Amino acid sequence: MLADIGMIGLAVMGSNLVKNMLGKGYTVAVYNREPEMTEHFAGQNKGQKLIATYSYEELVANIARPRKIMMMIRAGAPVDMVLDRLLPLLDKGDIVIDGGNSYFRDTIRRTQLLESKGLRYIGTGVSGGEEGALHGPSLMPGGSPSAWEDVKPILQSISAKVDGVPCCDWVGENGAGHFVKMVHNGIEYGDMQLISESYALLRGLLGLDAEKMSAIFREWNGTELDSYLIGITGNILAKKDTDGAPLIEKILDVAGQKGTGKWTGISSLEEGVPLTMICEAVHARCLSSMKEERVRAAKVYPRKAPSYTVGKEAFIEDLRRALYCAKIVSYAQGYTLMRAAAGSYHWNLNYGGIALMWRGGCIIRSRFLGKIREAFVRDPALENLLLDPYFKEILERYADSWRRVVAAAVMNGVPVPAMSSALEYFDGYTSEKLPANLLQAQRDYFGAHTYERVDAPRGQFFHTDWTGEGGDTPSTTYEV
Amino acid sequence: MLADIGMIGLAVMGSNLVKNMLGKGYTVAVYNREPEMTEHFAGQNKGQKLIATYSYEELVANIARPRKIMMMIRAGAPVDMVLDRLLPLLDKGDIVIDGGNSYFRDTIRRTQLLESKGLRYIGTGVSGGEEGALHGPSLMPGGSPSAWEDVKPILQSISAKVDGVPCCDWVGENGAGHFVKMVHNGIEYGDMQLISESYALLRGLLGLDAEKMSAIFREWNGTELDSYLIGITGNILAKKDTDGAPLIEKILDVAGQKGTGKWTGISSLEEGVPLTMICEAVHARCLSSMKEERVRAAKVYPRKAPSYTVGKEAFIEDLRRALYCAKIVSYAQGYTLMRAAAGSYHWNLNYGGIALMWRGGCIIRSRFLGKIREAFVRDPALENLLLDPYFKEILERYADSWRRVVAAAVMNGVPVPAMSSALEYFDGYTSEKLPANLLQAQRDYFGAHTYERVDAPRGQFFHTDWTGEGGDTPSTTYEV
Repeated sequence: MLADIGMIGLAVMGSNLVKNMLGKGYTVAVYNREPEMTEHFAGQNKGQKLIATYSYEELVANIARPRKIMMMIRAGAPVDMVLDRLLPLLDKGDIVIDGGNSYFRDTIRRTQLLESKGLRYIGTGVSGGEEGALHGPSLMPGGSPSAWEDVKPILQSISAKVDGVPCCDWVGENGAGHFVKMVHNGIEYGDMQLISESYALLRGLLGLDAEKMSAIFREWNGTELDSYLIGITGNILAKKDTDGAPLIEKILDVAGQKGTGKWTGISSLEEGVPLTMICEAVHARCLSSMKEERVRAAKVYPRKAPSYTVGKEAFIEDLRRALYCAKIVSYAQGYTLMRAAAGSYHWNLNYGGIALMWRGGCIIRSRFLGKIREAFVRDPALENLLLDPYFKEILERYADSWRRVVAAAVMNGVPVPAMSSALEYFDGYTSEKLPANLLQAQRDYFGAHTYERVDAPRGQFFHTDWTGEGGDTPSTTYEV
Repeated sequence: MLADIGMIGLAVMGSNLVKNMLGKGYTVAVYNREPEMTEHFAGQNKGQKLIATYSYEELVANIARPRKIMMMIRAGAPVDMVLDRLLPLLDKGDIVIDGGNSYFRDTIRRTQLLESKGLRYIGTGVSGGEEGALHGPSLMPGGSPSAWEDVKPILQSISAKVDGVPCCDWVGENGAGHFVKMVHNGIEYGDMQLISESYALLRGLLGLDAEKMSAIFREWNGTELDSYLIGITGNILAKKDTDGAPLIEKILDVAGQKGTGKWTGISSLEEGVPLTMICEAVHARCLSSMKEERVRAAKVYPRKAPSYTVGKEAFIEDLRRALYCAKIVSYAQGYTLMRAAAGSYHWNLNYGGIALMWRGGCIIRSRFLGKIREAFVRDPALENLLLDPYFKEILERYADSWRRVVAAAVMNGVPVPAMSSALEYFDGYTSEKLPANLLQAQRDYFGAHTYERVDAPRGQFFHTDWTGEGGDTPSTTYEV
């Protein structure tokens, strides 16, 4: 009997995806570089429709055609190395699926490579961590369009469902799936940072203990903040260490990261789309990792413990609202990046469909994504989520709370870089007039960069001889 | 008679640098792609030791050996195109100097290319705009070390001087000069954005007119804020349009940019160094350029004009202090990026020397850079400017003003993304404890990413089965 699909890579994500596939009745051929892992996995799954293989040749020989072979391996060079070994063994029309967090530009390149050989390629985002992989992840496939019909049944069958709708749909050509997954991860950085800042305020400003904070997050999870990350935060804060103390207090405040947040930030700078909040979230992880240096700096700047003794309950509700507002901005920014990239890379992205894919299975799953979906159903060409009536109503109602929270953090020295950056974006985006006229005047003053005028059509440029000494040579080389 | 140096490119920067060289007694051969510009320039500079040439061959033939040929042309592909034409005409030991805002990685590549052909390369930052080019720019040369002694006399002679010391010194190998210039430009973005935000608060929150604001900036220029950009801001705000109204009010609030700020932001993300403020400044320019969208968004979110009627004079002094504090953070961040890059690219950067190069000639020249220089004289290995005693004393004394200004802006909806981001960095950097422990717990919860503990040595990683359902397979592929 031949397998329906092959899997290369049996670390936690690969092995859980295989178990998920087996559970749905698929026959799966597996291969791992270390044969012991394959043996171990086969031993764990005796009696299942699993075919353990120990070479690429054996793997390929055991899969029905057109073959579907998924890789769950480390992104980067390892993917190219596997492709080098695998491609010569494949036949026309076979499909290779990369489920890792590959950089979307690599996926564009690899799609071209495989298509030039008559093969097909899918680069798919897989979100949901180990639990999601096992019980139903969110899947964001892009690549060779003709491959979609072939892989659709199996991918949608293993994916999460919300109201019976699979959290897996076609995203777009070549690197679109991995791009959308990258933005998803950037948004995840933002969500996690915002929750961490809320925790910092509850702990640092209000002086609450882990148990009380756990109760607050669990309560919030019954409001419009309802989401996987708020839910697990409630659980995390309730977890006790072996000595009975809250485990959270034993964990070192040094955040790791593996690159997709950075890529999102870099893409936003490349596209010229202000993703301020996600960039701040990435930077915040970097700053957290400078632990020893922070300890030294804290000694140079000793501070009194902040305290906020009046109206704790009111502050907690303000904070809940601030968290929701900042979260709206984070998603609004992420969506503007996808819009810009769709233009740059000629993808026809379905924004409401993306919200649907993220609604279940993945780390950022939330009730909130249903609201985003509805916004794009109301207006598929929506320029910015902030302009949708639902979000407008929330933001107008909650903005004062948000301002009070950021101001309190600022006055008390509790860092909230993401929450405040989101507020700054909201204030800037909704400003008809920004002070960039002064900036343009400066650029024209020192670099003859010219400026536009409020009383002249756009595209008409003016230069002023500010000092009475300058010439009339236009600036063409000095760039800033 | 042969020329001491050649110049390719006669736009404003190139032609002003040539005039500067001629004024110092050098003989200069010039070439421009459009012969009319060369003719025009030669006509303007009759009687000077200028050799107008009309082909690369003619240019090369008119320069003394080892030849020094400077390019002041648009960065990017044009530089490679000129090199393609020029290199076959050169002799061993000749030196090509790129004075444009080239990307430092291109300069690394070009230095290798020229050295592989027995030639030498200099990539130099040139700052100061058209005025600086004419009267004395700041120059930041890097590239082939042996070329430095050859180009030093001419570059130092045309550069700005502060207390008799030229604002031009050797930066380091290959792309070091262009990297330092890139960071300089990023800092310039930050300085300009901070001044613009200060102007926004004076205009929007206090309701001051241009004349009053001009007086304020001119007064500030007599304090520790003394700098070129503060000075020209005073002049800009005083400038009248032909109708007698302040010209500043006629200028459209849409900021241009040409890329070096973005590169600085991207480098900071690549190096993992939190340059939050400069990234916010770059994003702010992008947001300003979305003028039509902002006008639409402002209609969706109508706002009452903010007002701040109590203690205007005290607020102005608070603002001056806030501006200075944020500026300190901006430079502190820029220096941390240079430190990180010096490690990554094996440059031996002289941080005090860099402050000296920036002290005169360039757009960011200021009294303040003397303080940075002094800090690195006190401690050449200074980890972060914030830890220097002078800056510590200022920050501790001014921090409350800074907090009041950001809080007032936040409460009144005046966007100050750079000023607030700088404050968040200050608060984060000086925090012994950040809430990243929660973030690590989340990553371990959903992705088995493991965490370190406060009661265990660094480098020892722990995983908790948070739900009682997870396995013990370590996460090796899922990355976030």
